[in-house]
Amino acid sequence: MKTYSIAKSRRIRSSPYTSRIEKQGVTAYTTYNHMLLPSAFGPLEESYYHLKENVQIWDVAAERQVEISGKDSAKLVQLMTCRDLSKSKVGRCYYCPIIDDNAGLINDPVILKLDENRWWISIADSDVILFAKGLAIGNKFDVKIFEPNVDILAVQGPKSFQLMEKIFGKKITEMKFFGFDYFEFSGAKHLIAKSGWSKQGGYEIYVENTKSGLALYDELFEVGKKFNVKPGCPNLIERIESALLSYGNDIDNNDNPLECGLDKYVNLETNVNFLGKEKLKKIKENGIKKKLMGVIIDSKEINVSKSIDLTNEKNLKIGELRSGVYSPHFKKVIGIAMLNKPHFEVSQTFKISINHSIYEGKVCDLPFI
Amino acid sequence: MKTYSIAKSRRIRSSPYTSRIEKQGVTAYTTYNHMLLPSAFGPLEESYYHLKENVQIWDVAAERQVEISGKDSAKLVQLMTCRDLSKSKVGRCYYCPIIDDNAGLINDPVILKLDENRWWISIADSDVILFAKGLAIGNKFDVKIFEPNVDILAVQGPKSFQLMEKIFGKKITEMKFFGFDYFEFSGAKHLIAKSGWSKQGGYEIYVENTKSGLALYDELFEVGKKFNVKPGCPNLIERIESALLSYGNDIDNNDNPLECGLDKYVNLETNVNFLGKEKLKKIKENGIKKKLMGVIIDSKEINVSKSIDLTNEKNLKIGELRSGVYSPHFKKVIGIAMLNKPHFEVSQTFKISINHSIYEGKVCDLPFI
Repeated sequence: MKTYSIAKSRRIRSSPYTSRIEKQGVTAYTTYNHMLLPSAFGPLEESYYHLKENVQIWDVAAERQVEISGKDSAKLVQLMTCRDLSKSKVGRCYYCPIIDDNAGLINDPVILKLDENRWWISIADSDVILFAKGLAIGNKFDVKIFEPNVDILAVQGPKSFQLMEKIFGKKITEMKFFGFDYFEFSGAKHLIAKSGWSKQGGYEIYVENTKSGLALYDELFEVGKKFNVKPGCPNLIERIESALLSYGNDIDNNDNPLECGLDKYVNLETNVNFLGKEKLKKIKENGIKKKLMGVIIDSKEINVSKSIDLTNEKNLKIGELRSGVYSPHFKKVIGIAMLNKPHFEVSQTFKISINHSIYEGKVCDLPFI
Repeated sequence: MKTYSIAKSRRIRSSPYTSRIEKQGVTAYTTYNHMLLPSAFGPLEESYYHLKENVQIWDVAAERQVEISGKDSAKLVQLMTCRDLSKSKVGRCYYCPIIDDNAGLINDPVILKLDENRWWISIADSDVILFAKGLAIGNKFDVKIFEPNVDILAVQGPKSFQLMEKIFGKKITEMKFFGFDYFEFSGAKHLIAKSGWSKQGGYEIYVENTKSGLALYDELFEVGKKFNVKPGCPNLIERIESALLSYGNDIDNNDNPLECGLDKYVNLETNVNFLGKEKLKKIKENGIKKKLMGVIIDSKEINVSKSIDLTNEKNLKIGELRSGVYSPHFKKVIGIAMLNKPHFEVSQTFKISINHSIYEGKVCDLPFI
């Protein structure tokens, strides 16, 4: 496949780590929240195997925060998500679909409750801050909304626990998944969560003090030598095998959370007030018309740059592939697809055209592994 | 400068013209409104000279539309912009700063009045649709808001008028700047505006019927042969020389329209209701603290991927360069910079570090040409 350069400009913001990763061999970028997000350090498969066995440091500063604070902050945050946050606790992360009044997905962030009246929405790729501002202004909510200077470093992979223990001590290994706490390094406190966009385990360091963060970046590579540390980034193979959804790729504003298998984050039986609640009740009553599922395709390669139709034996479209990659584990292409009713069954087979050749595939449950 | 590949995925949407421009030699992309936007077809200077003398066809589908219709649509559109639209006319385009309640710029679109109760906001790079939805929901406005399937083709350059006349007849040459009308091609009506993101003259074709639009794309190249037509894209040299501002590059949410020289689009002496009005009155009363200006630097090259500090003889920061390029016309680097008070004077000189060397520069008025 022919590749194209990315044109850099101030509009596509660099991160504090950009000059470091460019010295360390980043080869490709995507953009995310108006920022550069590294997408490859050489061959994808090499990074995949390395991530599953070692530890990687990721520049995921593009995962921006929307800070919402003030008297009405809890009300505003709840208004935006169908997940019931009434029993949420300070010091915890919550995966929350954000939807509009039509129940269409606007983002699928992790929300950190920093305090009873202070929240960080750690966003996927859309300007949630504009939605929050519009809602706050329209509702005359007493809140402050802004994007703080937070540039996340992720430490991912099975050896991330040993590496982080060397730097921050035993306490960091005792944190629970999706918990967060504050840890000191080089004169600054860093919020560190046990989280990250892989299923290989690890942490996300919410760097607010850039100078200390850069010193920490270098320390992670220095101390990490004995754990075979490498620079990395979210890995397409690993994230599809693990069925970590990507907003804009697998799901978008034309989908509702029930179609995307996010049922457990849709809390309709509560008293809390959120956008799209009545709409979601109706959708649940009538049943969904399409469903996000896994697919396995008898092919050795694929490049998905837009939706690719899935057709049945009558050549009728039954769904569309939205993400896909060759999986060394399955030795086939695996992907995430939106299947139309009544075709969203595990038994369903389909045909798909890849590079002008027709391949056979079948539908399966998510996650793959 | 080392270049990096852009990683393609469904999240960074292709346009209907992507496969064509890739056959025609696009070499670099940026992203814009979650979409691929071509940023180079070979050397920038060649395209610059070609654009100033001939005609180019641009895939600017990334310039997305936010359609707002319904009973309260005029009220919502006005709420978002500090430009008085009370006397706006159907069939006209309006350049409108969109600001939040703090007068911070959110976007600087061209707004098309399609009908008394139907508008297209032709946006720069931010999710205005989310701001509009938030405001509409919060204010309980009776409006419909969505992103229509519109993929703009721009026809730019001094020979664009002859080319378009060959295809659409004499009527299209009689349209006034920022007027629009409907023209038929291959069985479909196309909204065509006399506009575009260059100062070389031309049109923007708002393609809703993709099939007809692709036929038109091919026809433009076929008929355009005699006018030396080439594929192109917004040209960094031409747009800086002409001082066409780029949201995210030159201006952002931390700037207000008075700081950005957009005074004539700030209509404070009217009865219309818009966000940030009181704030803007105060800013106007107290005077701005920084100002967007041109700069000329005694250098032969520059790559601006983030703000670069401008310092005075005491090594104090007096402003920052936000866009810049070598101009073959001036035989120097020219750029757009935000200067801090009291340094936003045409007489001001400064120093700037480019690739570890120090260069001298001076402040000037915009536009350059």
